[in-house]
Formats: sequence, C-alpha cells, structure tokens
Amino acid sequence: MSTTTTTTTQQSRSFSAMSKQRSLNINNINPHVKEAKYAVRGELAIKSEQYRAQLAKGEGKDLPFDSVISANIGNPQQLDQQPITFFRQVASLVENPLLLEHEDVLQKSLGYKSDAIERAKKLLKDVKSVGAYSQSQGAPAIRKSVANFIERRDGHPADADNIYLCAGASAGVNALMSVICDGPSTGVLVPIPQYPLYTATLSLLNAQAVPYYLNEESQWSTDVEGMRSALKKARDNGVDVRAVVVINPGNPTGGSLDADNIKAVIQLAAEEKLVVLADEVYQTNVFEGEFTSFKKCLRELQGGKDNEGGKYDHLELASLHSISKGMVGECGHRGGYYEMVGFDAEVVAQIYKFVSIMLCPPVVGQCIVEVMVNPPKEGEPSYDLYRKEYDGIFNNLQNRAQALYKAFKEMEGVECQSPQGSMYLYPTINLPQKALEAAKKEGKNPDDFYCLELLDATGICIVPGSGFGQKEGTLHFRTTFLAPGTEWVSRITAFHGKFMDKYR
Amino acid sequence: MSTTTTTTTQQSRSFSAMSKQRSLNINNINPHVKEAKYAVRGELAIKSEQYRAQLAKGEGKDLPFDSVISANIGNPQQLDQQPITFFRQVASLVENPLLLEHEDVLQKSLGYKSDAIERAKKLLKDVKSVGAYSQSQGAPAIRKSVANFIERRDGHPADADNIYLCAGASAGVNALMSVICDGPSTGVLVPIPQYPLYTATLSLLNAQAVPYYLNEESQWSTDVEGMRSALKKARDNGVDVRAVVVINPGNPTGGSLDADNIKAVIQLAAEEKLVVLADEVYQTNVFEGEFTSFKKCLRELQGGKDNEGGKYDHLELASLHSISKGMVGECGHRGGYYEMVGFDAEVVAQIYKFVSIMLCPPVVGQCIVEVMVNPPKEGEPSYDLYRKEYDGIFNNLQNRAQALYKAFKEMEGVECQSPQGSMYLYPTINLPQKALEAAKKEGKNPDDFYCLELLDATGICIVPGSGFGQKEGTLHFRTTFLAPGTEWVSRITAFHGKFMDKYR
Repeated sequence: MSTTTTTTTQQSRSFSAMSKQRSLNINNINPHVKEAKYAVRGELAIKSEQYRAQLAKGEGKDLPFDSVISANIGNPQQLDQQPITFFRQVASLVENPLLLEHEDVLQKSLGYKSDAIERAKKLLKDVKSVGAYSQSQGAPAIRKSVANFIERRDGHPADADNIYLCAGASAGVNALMSVICDGPSTGVLVPIPQYPLYTATLSLLNAQAVPYYLNEESQWSTDVEGMRSALKKARDNGVDVRAVVVINPGNPTGGSLDADNIKAVIQLAAEEKLVVLADEVYQTNVFEGEFTSFKKCLRELQGGKDNEGGKYDHLELASLHSISKGMVGECGHRGGYYEMVGFDAEVVAQIYKFVSIMLCPPVVGQCIVEVMVNPPKEGEPSYDLYRKEYDGIFNNLQNRAQALYKAFKEMEGVECQSPQGSMYLYPTINLPQKALEAAKKEGKNPDDFYCLELLDATGICIVPGSGFGQKEGTLHFRTTFLAPGTEWVSRITAFHGKFMDKYR
Repeated sequence: MSTTTTTTTQQSRSFSAMSKQRSLNINNINPHVKEAKYAVRGELAIKSEQYRAQLAKGEGKDLPFDSVISANIGNPQQLDQQPITFFRQVASLVENPLLLEHEDVLQKSLGYKSDAIERAKKLLKDVKSVGAYSQSQGAPAIRKSVANFIERRDGHPADADNIYLCAGASAGVNALMSVICDGPSTGVLVPIPQYPLYTATLSLLNAQAVPYYLNEESQWSTDVEGMRSALKKARDNGVDVRAVVVINPGNPTGGSLDADNIKAVIQLAAEEKLVVLADEVYQTNVFEGEFTSFKKCLRELQGGKDNEGGKYDHLELASLHSISKGMVGECGHRGGYYEMVGFDAEVVAQIYKFVSIMLCPPVVGQCIVEVMVNPPKEGEPSYDLYRKEYDGIFNNLQNRAQALYKAFKEMEGVECQSPQGSMYLYPTINLPQKALEAAKKEGKNPDDFYCLELLDATGICIVPGSGFGQKEGTLHFRTTFLAPGTEWVSRITAFHGKFMDKYR
C-alpha cells in the first residue's frame, strides 16, 4: 500500500516536473532571432511606454515630468503631424465606396473636391475592393503610376513590371535580403551607423553584416575607399560579399549624398559585382541641396563614356521608397515599393514567389503609395490645400531640425553635423570620465546610460548610438525632430547641463 | 602598338563577359527560397491572370470562354462579395477623421448610424491616427477587445498581453515559426493535405515538415494515432519535432473537427511536448455542427480530472484568427491576431522583438480586427443591417457549397466529402489511364494536367492537389465556392464530361 502510494506520488512528481519543461525555451529556439538586435523599439522604448501608461492613469505624480516625448522613432502622426487631407479623403472613399453615391453631399458639405472623388473611383476600378487581395507584387495600375513617378523624377524610363509594392520598405528589405543571402558565408556591406533593420535582418538570415564607416566629419558622407577596404578584408576572410546597402538621406545620420558620391558607390559596385540596395525612403526630407536617386545616377553612368565594355549594364539595383516618411508620414498604413533593375529574371521569379507566400501588401497602403507618387497637380481642385499642407509640414520639420541643431551646438561636449536630410540628428556626445565610470558600474554602455538618465529625468526617449553602430571610442544618440514645439528641446538642454555638472 | 591594342580588346572583352555575370543568379541565391513551394499563386494562377488581361484588352476572341473565374484563392471581395457596411463606415471615418465634424450630414444624408460614429471615435482615441505606427504587438485597446471576444466565445478568460495583432494570419505563422525553428533538425507536424503556407515557411527556415495524413473517408478528421506514428518515425530519425499544426476548419479539406478530436490532439501534444499551432481562421465558416476552439478545449482539459500532475498546465498553444475569411472577407486589409498561452516569457520576448523589426501590423487592419470581434450588438442602431448582411453572405456560401458538392457527386470518378466548413472543397478525382499517360507524356502530374486543361477550356482556375499534398496514388483539386452564380459550376461539369470521354 505504502509502496503504491510512493510510486504514484513519484510518477506524479516526475510528470509534473516534465510538464514544466515546455517545448520551447530560450536555449532551444532559433538562435538567429536571439542574435538580432533592434534598439529602436528596445528596452528604452518599452520603459517610455510604461511611463506614458502611468501618466495616462494619473499615477505619475512622483515623476519629474508630465509628458513622454517619443523622439526614438520616426512616427510623425503619433506626434501630432496631421495627415494630408487629399490622401485621407481618397482613402475614406475607397474604404466606403457607398459614399460615391453622394458626390453632391461630399462636395457641398464635406470638403471633398472632384479630383479626390475621381481618384477614388479610378483606384477602385484598379483594385476592385480594398478588401480583396491584389496581385502579390501589387496592383498593376498602381505599379504603373509608380513607374511614371520615377520617370518624371529621374528623366529616365521605368517599367511597372520592375516595381514591387510592399508593406513598408522594411518588408521590401526583408524580401530582397531573404533571396540574396545564402547562409553564413554571405556578406552584405552595411554603413555604420545604420538603421538596425539591416543588421537585424542579416542576423535573422544567419548572414554577415560587413561594416563600412561613414565620414562623420564630412556630413556623414560615404567613403568609397573605406568601403573598398572593408570589402577586401571581408573577402580575404572568405566572406562572399554580394551587396551593399546605402541609406540616402541617412538614417540615423541626417546626411544627404550628392551625385558624385552616389556614382562612386555605383562604380565600386559595378567593379566588385555587388547588388546595390538603395534605401531612399527619406528622398523628400532634404534640407540642403537636392535629392538624386541611385537609379538616375546609374542611368547616367550607363549612358556615359565611362561605360566601357558595358560595365554598368548589368548592375543590380534595388531602390526602396515608403509612404511612412517624407511629408506623407503614413507609417501605420504600411506601404512602400522597390524598383529592381538589372536583376536576372530567374532571381526575380524567386522574389515573386517569396512575396506571394505573404499574399499581398495592404491594399489601402497601396492606394496611398499611388496618391503619394501622383499627388494633385497645379491647377487641379485639391492642389492648393495639398501644397499648403505639404509645405507646412516641410517647413515645420526644417525649423525644428534647426532649433535642435542649434541647441546641440551649444551643449557642452556635443558635436553635431548640420541637418541635411531625413528626420534625425545623430550628435556625438563626449562624456566626462566619471560618467563613463558610473555607466560601467551599472554594467551599461555609456550612451545607453546617458539615454536612460535622460528618459528618467525628462520623459524624452531617444536611442543610444550603440543601437546603430559607431566608431570605437565614440558615443552618439539619435533623436527625431518630429515632436511638436520646442519646449522639449530645452528639457534636453537642462538635463544635459545637470548631467555634466554631476559627473564632471 | 599592336600588342597594346590586343591587350585592351582582351581586357574589354573579359570585362564585358564578367559584367554579364551578375552578383546574383539562380544558383547562388538562398536555396531555401528556391525549395519553397506555393502553388496557390503559382503557374496556373499566373496563366489565369494572363487570360484575364487578354480578355480585358478585347484580345481573347479565340478563347473558348469569356470570363476567368478565380476559384484558386479565398479572395471573396474579388469575387463580388460585398464588404459589411458597418466595418467600412468605421474604416472610412478613421481614415478621414474630419468627417466626424459633420455627424449630422453623416447620419442624415450618408447612412451612418450613431454607433458607427462612436466606434470610429473610440478607435481614433485608441490609435491616435491610423497613419501612426502602433505598438509592435498591436494597439493595446484593440488587443483588449480581442481578449474580450475570446472570453465570450470560449467562456474562459483571455489576457490582452497574450494577443499579438498581425498582418493576416500568414504573418503570425511566419513570426511563430521563425522563433520555433532552429535549423534543419527541427520538425513540425503538418497535416496532409495542408495550406502550403506551412511547408513554404518551414522550407524558408530550413526546417522539416513532418507530414501526418488526415482521414479523408471520415470528413478529413485528425487521426491521432497517425500523428503519433509520424512523430515517432521522425524522432527515431533524429528529428527534433517541436510543434504540431492543425487547421480547423480545414484548408483545403473543408472539414471541421469536433471537441473530442481537438482534445485528443491536445492530449498528444501535452504528452509529447509539442507546441500547438491552431489555425482557426475559418472559425465562422462552419456549415455542420459548431466551431470549438483549441483554447476552450485546453481550458476544459486543464480544469478537468484528466489533468493529473498538471500535465496540461504548460501546454503551449498559439491560435490564429484573421479578418480575411469568414463573412468579413477583408483580405486586402491584412489583419489578424494570434493568442499565445503557456509560452515561456523569455520566448515571448523574442517573438516580440521579431515582430518589432517589421514595426507594426497595418493599423486600419487592426481597426477591422476590432470591429470583427466586436460587431454591432442586438438593439444597437447598426445591428439589423449588419445581421442581414452577415447572414446573407453565410447563406450564399452555404448554398454555393451545396451546389458544388452536388455537382461533384454526380461527376464520373469524383468523390467529395460534404462541406462542413471553410471556403473549399477538395474532391478526389479518379482519372482514366489514358489521362495519366497523357500527363506523363507532357511531364506533368496528372492533377496539374487536369487543372491546366480545365483552365484552358473554361477559364476556371483551381489548384491541383499536389499543391497541398495528398496520399500517394490519389489525386485531388481544391476549389473555393466563392464565385457568384452557378453557371461556372456547369462549365466544370461540362469540361469534366468531355475530359473523361477524351481519355476513357
């Protein structure tokens, strides 16, 4: 009797112990997911959301701030940027086509102009319903509109068959990298600092990021000689380097490349047989000079004297654009596209199959891609308001960038390049020795330590340079300049002064 | 001089030859992408789109049909299913919040009821703007609404923290599988036939699909003994089987599992330490009996006498739902969710990081998830229309399923299970020997051959059984019953008669 009881208890115990061993634990899951790092939405972002929730519940009375400022992520409409009216009017009509039975009401009582109504009708004809799957590559008529835009922008033809619509540029990068990477020996040249999507995606694919450093002292420009030596070193080590990523305008740097710089990269890529991945999502966020596309530079090189032996003819270029950035700021709609030129048809077929497994990009997002690339033209009914809204957003961004830049220039130990483009500044911070020691004591990187102290003191969330990469021995942080007003800038200045005093 | 010229020419030639060697070709890209198969949007689908384009251009006069019927893919709104008015009214208001300044006009002239307006206001409060990124996991208030829905459906609590919104269930499967799979030794039990997302995703992750066969003769039910022997065989071969996929109601089978069947699967999973991935996207497409969720069965087992030693306490279950199917049919909006219970917190943190790299699911899609799980209630202003539309779609689907089923039953050599659920029928076709030989001659699988002949003769696109898997020596095809009318059904019947006559 006693024996039986013991046995049952033992069985029960061992069963119980076993049952607590789940199938999955941190030590047996995909190691490449574990290796991936994405600081933009990491520890600091999560803590800032906790502060925000606390304040919303009225529980944050002890906190030394009364609002949280999310300067960690390029999310304009979370920070009070208003959507462009024309875009959203069109979106509301494709969402509820029954409204189109009341054009009179729309126009007389609700502020819709005839061109918004016509555009919605056209898009509905193209997609049938925004609730229907489109072709995996995106609706043909919308891709055609994108091709027309590229043609107008660059002065060179573009083909709708080469356009792939996607759920934001991130999804495009994922598709391209997934096909490019063939395991641990594959390398992709990635700028440092970089938007961590690139290194994270390479980690997930168990491929290697081959870092090349941008020139901070010359507005974060691309140093082709540095790229060449990084490439050589990697190849000497047996890495099969196949592609190079360039982010222009730069994230996190805020730099903007000129045509010569871009052509030098293309030349290198042609000589070294590298696919060029041109992340051009900030192409309208340019404050100094003007944006030049990789596609345009490539076509110029292909038509130029330097194209000896057709060396540029088969260069593989994928250029990405998005509705999340620029004056559009429609991040939540998850829309974008990439154009592929020079790719082998069999490779393209594999990219097509890859994207078809995820069915299609969001169709309303596709519609917003269409209105972004084909906005109201001068003389059309919605043009004046569109222009006014667009310019207003642009000027606000530029003014805030300048305000922040000036503040940084005056801060002790801070050095910052002037804002040329994108939505970010990426200043160097020189911290006192005592601060470095305090960080070390807490087991943190000094830039992580600084950003955490800033968040705890001011409610402002920025991202440490370690999340993007930086030269050994340097420290940075990235901040957007999207948050409205300038009050928060003075919060940073005040914090910085106190921080320096404390650790000097 | 002559020597120099020769050298230059040689250099130029070799440069030219080299330049045609692009960086990427079919032999050096990711082999796992090449291995992935996704027939639903494969060769036949592409050919059918070419026919459609031909007809649209008026160039199809020689074709033996005047319209293309896409019965290959569950895409209701491409096939004239109308969206539910309440859902789209809410969507139009969140897209254009300026409309909310004209409630009077909305209600008096445009058919909006007060509850649609209130819902849009609530959602805008929750997400701020549909153009803003939400939390990577989805907007908290929408996740809460999903948790409430699950609680009402199952009679057991659900926690918003366990809900992950996603860009359709496919994105959810991708996230879960990406974390579960640790290279070539990982195996996941997958039903045969299956929706090819599962095998394609496992191919991409270089992991193994471990097939288990469904019982065609008993309405495609799940045979637990068959699963157990498939599992044993795989483990004996060194495969680390960690998870089991169940699709209920079934895709492509059209079967629907009862609670006993589900509990038997859970019991197996608990004994064998398997994560259960329950694909429940067709949970409202049930024509016989009623839908029972895996979550509900799990909670019953956990609270029951059989839970000796807590053997069910740590079972890891992820259940997926979508806005693409059911009476909602909003595929193009890319929305869905998965609920994870029993997972280790460290594993969940890795899933969170994984989804954060892609930023967030489309926010309008999140809003449609919310209205799907929280539709107008009896007594509310929009209820009557909602009910009428919902029931109308349901009845149409059921009637068309029955019409198709009857047609199949009368076709020579065709055997079909009665339609219990989902949007598909998956009949067996017994083809004459001569047809098998004709297929072989063309280097095709017999079911591919049959479906291609059907497309060429009738313009109807269905998917061969080889795209989903079938027992050795059997042949099937999958068709949706979404296309309106019944004329196309008689096109199939007529084709089938001629095909059999030709090859008898």
